[in-house]
Amino acid sequence: MPDRLGHPLEKPLFDQLTLIGVGLIGSSLARVARRQNLAKTIIAIDSSEEARKKIAALQLADHVTGDYADGVKNADCVILCVPVGACGLVAEKISSSLKAGAILSDVGSVKGAIVSQIEPHLPKHVHFVPAHPVAGTEQSGPEAGFATLFNNRWCILTPPEGTDKDAVAKLRLFWEGAGSNVEEMSSSHHDLVLAITSHLPHLIAYNIVGTAADLEAVTESEVIKFSAGGFRDFTRIAASDPTMWRDVFLNNKDAVLEMLGRFTEDLSALQRAIRWGDGEMLFDHFTRTRAIRRSIIEIGQDSATPDFGRQAKDDPVQ
Amino acid sequence: MPDRLGHPLEKPLFDQLTLIGVGLIGSSLARVARRQNLAKTIIAIDSSEEARKKIAALQLADHVTGDYADGVKNADCVILCVPVGACGLVAEKISSSLKAGAILSDVGSVKGAIVSQIEPHLPKHVHFVPAHPVAGTEQSGPEAGFATLFNNRWCILTPPEGTDKDAVAKLRLFWEGAGSNVEEMSSSHHDLVLAITSHLPHLIAYNIVGTAADLEAVTESEVIKFSAGGFRDFTRIAASDPTMWRDVFLNNKDAVLEMLGRFTEDLSALQRAIRWGDGEMLFDHFTRTRAIRRSIIEIGQDSATPDFGRQAKDDPVQ
Repeated sequence: MPDRLGHPLEKPLFDQLTLIGVGLIGSSLARVARRQNLAKTIIAIDSSEEARKKIAALQLADHVTGDYADGVKNADCVILCVPVGACGLVAEKISSSLKAGAILSDVGSVKGAIVSQIEPHLPKHVHFVPAHPVAGTEQSGPEAGFATLFNNRWCILTPPEGTDKDAVAKLRLFWEGAGSNVEEMSSSHHDLVLAITSHLPHLIAYNIVGTAADLEAVTESEVIKFSAGGFRDFTRIAASDPTMWRDVFLNNKDAVLEMLGRFTEDLSALQRAIRWGDGEMLFDHFTRTRAIRRSIIEIGQDSATPDFGRQAKDDPVQ
Repeated sequence: MPDRLGHPLEKPLFDQLTLIGVGLIGSSLARVARRQNLAKTIIAIDSSEEARKKIAALQLADHVTGDYADGVKNADCVILCVPVGACGLVAEKISSSLKAGAILSDVGSVKGAIVSQIEPHLPKHVHFVPAHPVAGTEQSGPEAGFATLFNNRWCILTPPEGTDKDAVAKLRLFWEGAGSNVEEMSSSHHDLVLAITSHLPHLIAYNIVGTAADLEAVTESEVIKFSAGGFRDFTRIAASDPTMWRDVFLNNKDAVLEMLGRFTEDLSALQRAIRWGDGEMLFDHFTRTRAIRRSIIEIGQDSATPDFGRQAKDDPVQ
């Protein structure tokens, strides 16, 4: 996989970057911002004292605080790295403390709902540029982050119409500096694309792991022992953060239900082919799905080690 | 992951091992049998001339042939490494050439159907011991194999009642020599366990990749670009061999339909929770599935690189 993280910037993009919430994504941003000189000063805000202690011990920021107003007041860029459901509350908490011209952004996996939760609290002198780095692992917490998490991954910006162009351009430079490819689209289109490429896969993985756990005829220890036949990769995805994913499904309901409806319809067709022994239909379907895999490999969005399963210790540089 | 492949055996287990079908599994068996000295002579049979040429070029066997009778006649152990649907035909083809006391085995992902397809053709003087190594990657063909594919993976033996104990013990030694943990169970229980841990995961992965390819509002290139959010790991599983998987579903119909019924039922409950905004139900479900993941890691059935995605080039020893 090509390394898009070049030399650190000579001049930082921001004088002060404030990250609110320092879990997997926030702590990875702190690490890469430091390493690539994307910001002169990094402030970390977290509501949990335990998390603040960890961040301080890991030396991920220049200053760690639980005081939201104080943490954002001098920031040129504030990025919310909290679960989708918490974004509205945090925006309300910080809105009167943001300085004029500051960029406010987020990293949420849902964009439409975040925009409608944050916009009512936005002062006119702040530029809101929603963002979503399509990268992650099943790990959570400040220790789980690593500087190359965003390397060669896509980051989607969904600026509402009329957003200041310079602010969008600056945030784009920030994410490119973190190693990402950047694309812009509308928040509604984002939510549709992610419903199929991320939200539905997670729902299905969570579901099959639950189904397996409930079986009477097959013991849990058998499921665990013989998981190498495909199931194991699902358990990895189904180990992702429960709060984050609850919020994703509650906040991208329409798109998820739409994709789920199509998925179930298609699954019924495969089920029928199995019941009636239609080998030709199964073979054709299984052949067609191979082509998509080939394309993913071709555009370099795959490596021997998948995202889910990557850990800080696999990362030689952080 | 602990390496269960110790020193090569001082004395080979079999004078002659014949492998019929030399794809991912067959060629991996040839490699590990050679490396660990599990057989003095390895014969490879394949019906495809192209595959025979590849096997010869890779020097995976002492002798490569398309003549089934000739290839099995001196074998102490014959292992069918062909798709489930072909096992009956191959057994019929070789039955009159098998020598007295020979062990006949297979590597099929379904056991009940294989037993009923093979048993009618079995001469009384041959010991049939069905086996299923729970290991694989999404790659196919002789080039895809590697000697450590079975290392620290489970191999399930499903000897029918009354099978010669010495034959079962010898096949167990063979699989342990290939690095596997060996467990015995009935073929019907095997088919239930594998339906949930392997067959259903594959069906679901094949299905969601198909659903994604059919969307009108989201382009295929978007699906491919933003696949890192979870979808990508599904495409890897859905790139598995179509013939093999068609045969699995046609031959383990009852167990797959049973597990699929439960899966769909559970998915409807999650769907309902999303529609009605029941965050508590979602959170509880997502928390419960984390525990299973933890157990898989605890018993050492996971590594940074999952099975799907492993390739010969990742294997330092072959």
